[in-house]
Amino acid sequence: MEKAPGMIVTLLTDFGTADGYVGEMKGVLAALAPDTELVDITHDISPQDIEGGRLALARYWQRFPTGTVHLAVVDPGVGGARAALAVSAAGRYLVGPDNGLLSPALLMPDARAVALPIPPGASATFHGRDVFAPAAARLALGATIDTLGQQPAIEPVIRRTPEPKRGADGGLHGIVMTIDRFGNAITNLVGLRGGSITVGDRTLPVVRSYIDVPAGAVTAVCGSSGLIEIAERDGNAARSLRLTRGASVVYWPPAPASL
Amino acid sequence: MEKAPGMIVTLLTDFGTADGYVGEMKGVLAALAPDTELVDITHDISPQDIEGGRLALARYWQRFPTGTVHLAVVDPGVGGARAALAVSAAGRYLVGPDNGLLSPALLMPDARAVALPIPPGASATFHGRDVFAPAAARLALGATIDTLGQQPAIEPVIRRTPEPKRGADGGLHGIVMTIDRFGNAITNLVGLRGGSITVGDRTLPVVRSYIDVPAGAVTAVCGSSGLIEIAERDGNAARSLRLTRGASVVYWPPAPASL
Amino acid sequence: MEKAPGMIVTLLTDFGTADGYVGEMKGVLAALAPDTELVDITHDISPQDIEGGRLALARYWQRFPTGTVHLAVVDPGVGGARAALAVSAAGRYLVGPDNGLLSPALLMPDARAVALPIPPGASATFHGRDVFAPAAARLALGATIDTLGQQPAIEPVIRRTPEPKRGADGGLHGIVMTIDRFGNAITNLVGLRGGSITVGDRTLPVVRSYIDVPAGAVTAVCGSSGLIEIAERDGNAARSLRLTRGASVVYWPPAPASL
Repeated sequence: MEKAPGMIVTLLTDFGTADGYVGEMKGVLAALAPDTELVDITHDISPQDIEGGRLALARYWQRFPTGTVHLAVVDPGVGGARAALAVSAAGRYLVGPDNGLLSPALLMPDARAVALPIPPGASATFHGRDVFAPAAARLALGATIDTLGQQPAIEPVIRRTPEPKRGADGGLHGIVMTIDRFGNAITNLVGLRGGSITVGDRTLPVVRSYIDVPAGAVTAVCGSSGLIEIAERDGNAARSLRLTRGASVVYWPPAPASL
Repeated sequence: MEKAPGMIVTLLTDFGTADGYVGEMKGVLAALAPDTELVDITHDISPQDIEGGRLALARYWQRFPTGTVHLAVVDPGVGGARAALAVSAAGRYLVGPDNGLLSPALLMPDARAVALPIPPGASATFHGRDVFAPAAARLALGATIDTLGQQPAIEPVIRRTPEPKRGADGGLHGIVMTIDRFGNAITNLVGLRGGSITVGDRTLPVVRSYIDVPAGAVTAVCGSSGLIEIAERDGNAARSLRLTRGASVVYWPPAPASL
Repeated sequence: MEKAPGMIVTLLTDFGTADGYVGEMKGVLAALAPDTELVDITHDISPQDIEGGRLALARYWQRFPTGTVHLAVVDPGVGGARAALAVSAAGRYLVGPDNGLLSPALLMPDARAVALPIPPGASATFHGRDVFAPAAARLALGATIDTLGQQPAIEPVIRRTPEPKRGADGGLHGIVMTIDRFGNAITNLVGLRGGSITVGDRTLPVVRSYIDVPAGAVTAVCGSSGLIEIAERDGNAARSLRLTRGASVVYWPPAPASL
C-alpha cells in the first residue's frame, strides 16, 4: 500500500504528561519525522489500564484518514516477553505492546502484524521512547510494516468485549464495560429505544437522550457507539447507583407491537 | 469574507480525554479537513460547566488569527431542543451548542449566527462528533456560515458576566466569577492598584503582582484580563479564604490624592 | 546560527488548561508565527513546582530537532525582579523565567542567555502571554536570541540535581528526586543491575525491569534516564513505601566477581 509522507501520528498513553515521558516520545517523533503532525488522543488512561486504552482506541482509530499511524502505549509488561507490534489494518497503522491494547485493529479481517525488534540500547522500562516511537516515525515516513519486523513468534493477544448472554428469563445479560468522565456506565449491550435495563434493584427505560428525562433522573440511552449507557441527567449515574466496571445489567427488549 | 484553507481549529470541551470522545472528534476533523492544524485548548472544563467554558473561551478566542475556527462543546442539553450554532464574529468562526457557551463571540457587534441542521444519522448524545466537528471542518476548508445553516428560530442564548453595583456605602459590589488552578479568585470588578477589596471579614489592598507581598500573604491584584483577583503568594487564596464562585466582594477605589 | 522558519514550539507550564491561560499563549503564538507547529509537553506541572518542571524539561529538550523552541513557564516570581530569559544551547532555544527552570539548558557548555525586556503594557501576573510567547514566536520565525534582549544583569539561576555522597559505610547516599505518575521514586543515583538500594528499613535488589519481579513486589530498576528508580510491579511503590521527594536512599554496588 502506498502512502504519502507527512502523515498524522496519534498518541495514546497512560503516562500523564507531567513527568516528561510523553515529551521524550514526541521529541523522538519530531526528530525522525519532522513533517508529521502529532495529534494527542490522551495521556490520561489510568496507569496500566489496558482495558481502558483498548476501549478508547476502539472509538477513534478508524475515524482518522487512511495512512494515519496510531501510537498506543499502555505497557505494564515492558521489558518482559511480550512482543512489540506494528499492525496494518483497514488502511491505518498501529504501534504498541502485544497485550491486547491493539485488539480493535487486530480483529479486522485484513489485519497484519509484525513483531518489532528491540534495539540493543533500548531501555528495559520505556519502549514507548525507544521502540514504539521510532517505529511510528518510520511508518509516518512511508515504511511498510514488513520493513519494520517479522511475523510474531506467537499469535498476538486479543482482548474482546464480552458477548451478552440470553437468559432463561428472556433478558439479555451483560455488564458495565466502563465508566466515562460524565459517570455514564457504558454496557456491552446493543439495545433499542423502548426497551429497559435492570441494574441492581432499578429498572430503567431506554430513552433517546439524557434530555428526555427530568434533571437528576437516572435513565438509559443508546449511546454514541450504539451501546446502551446508564446515565443521569445533569448528574453522575455511576456515583448515584454505585456502578463500577463489570457490574451486571440485564436488557429487556421492547415488547412487539400488538396488532 | 474570503479565507485560506488549511486553517487552525481549536478545541474546548468538558470531555476529558481518557474515554476517546475527543479522539473521535479529531478523527472526524482530520478526515474531512486533512490540512487543518488542530490546537487543543482544553478538555478539562468541569463536566457540564457552561460558565467555566464561557470564561475560558472569552480569554483566548480573539487572540488567534482571523480565520481560526473555535470548536467548543460543553453540552448538557445535547439531543434536546437547543440549537447547534455556527457563529462568525470579529473574523473568527465558532461552532458549538446554543446554551451561552459562545456568548463572548455572540456579543460582538458584527456577530452572525446560523443554526446547524442535525443530520438524520447523528447520535442524540454526541453532537460534538456528528454535528459540530463536521461543521468546523467545513469552515476550516473555507465554507461560510451561511452555507452551513439558516437563521436560528430563536435568538441565541447569551450569558453575561454580571455587572457590579455601586452600593450606598460607596463600594462597588461584585462577585467571584471563577477560581483558577492556582486558587486565584477572579472577580467581575475592574479595579485600580491602590484600591482595596473586602471579602468576608478581610479587606485586602490591590497591589501590582503577587510578588509585592510576602510569601503566604493574601492580597488582591489586577489580573491579566484587567479584573481584580484575590490571590495568595506561594499559596492558594481560594482554599485559605474558602472562596467559591459567586462569593460577594466589595471594591473600594483608591482615595483621590489630596492636593 | 541560521534557522528555517516554521519550526516547532513546545509548551510546558503549570497552568492546567481549564482556565484558558494556555489558550491565550497559543493564540499569541499562532497570531505571530502562523506556520509554527505547537507541541504540548505538559500543562500539569504542579502549581509553582519549578523543580518538577526542571526535571521534566531535562528529559525532552534535547530529543527535539535542532531549531526547536522550548517555551517553559513555571513562574511564581512573575512581576518581581527575576529576569525573563531566552537561551540558546545545543542548537535549541528556550524561553522562560530565570528561576532555575531552564537549568538543563543553561548547564550546557555552549549555553548563552539574554534577558528579555518587559514591554510597557505587559501584565504583571502573566508573562507567559505577554513576554515569553512573543519571544518564542520570534525565535520560531528565525530571530536569534541576541535580537531579543541583552546580557542578563546577574548570572542566571541554576538548579542542579544534588550529587550523591560516598558514605563511610561504603554506600552511595542519595535522595528521591521525584515521584512519577506510576509511583516510581526516581533517585539521583546512577546504578548498576546487581546492586541493591536501601530505603527506610527495606533493601531492594536493582533488577533490569519491573517485569523481573512478581506482581506486587517492590524492587529497584535502572530507569530510562540511567537513574535508579524504586518501583512496584503492577503497583505504586511511592504509596506502598510512603516515599516522597527528598527521601534518603543508599546504593550498594554489586560485589566484584570473585575469581
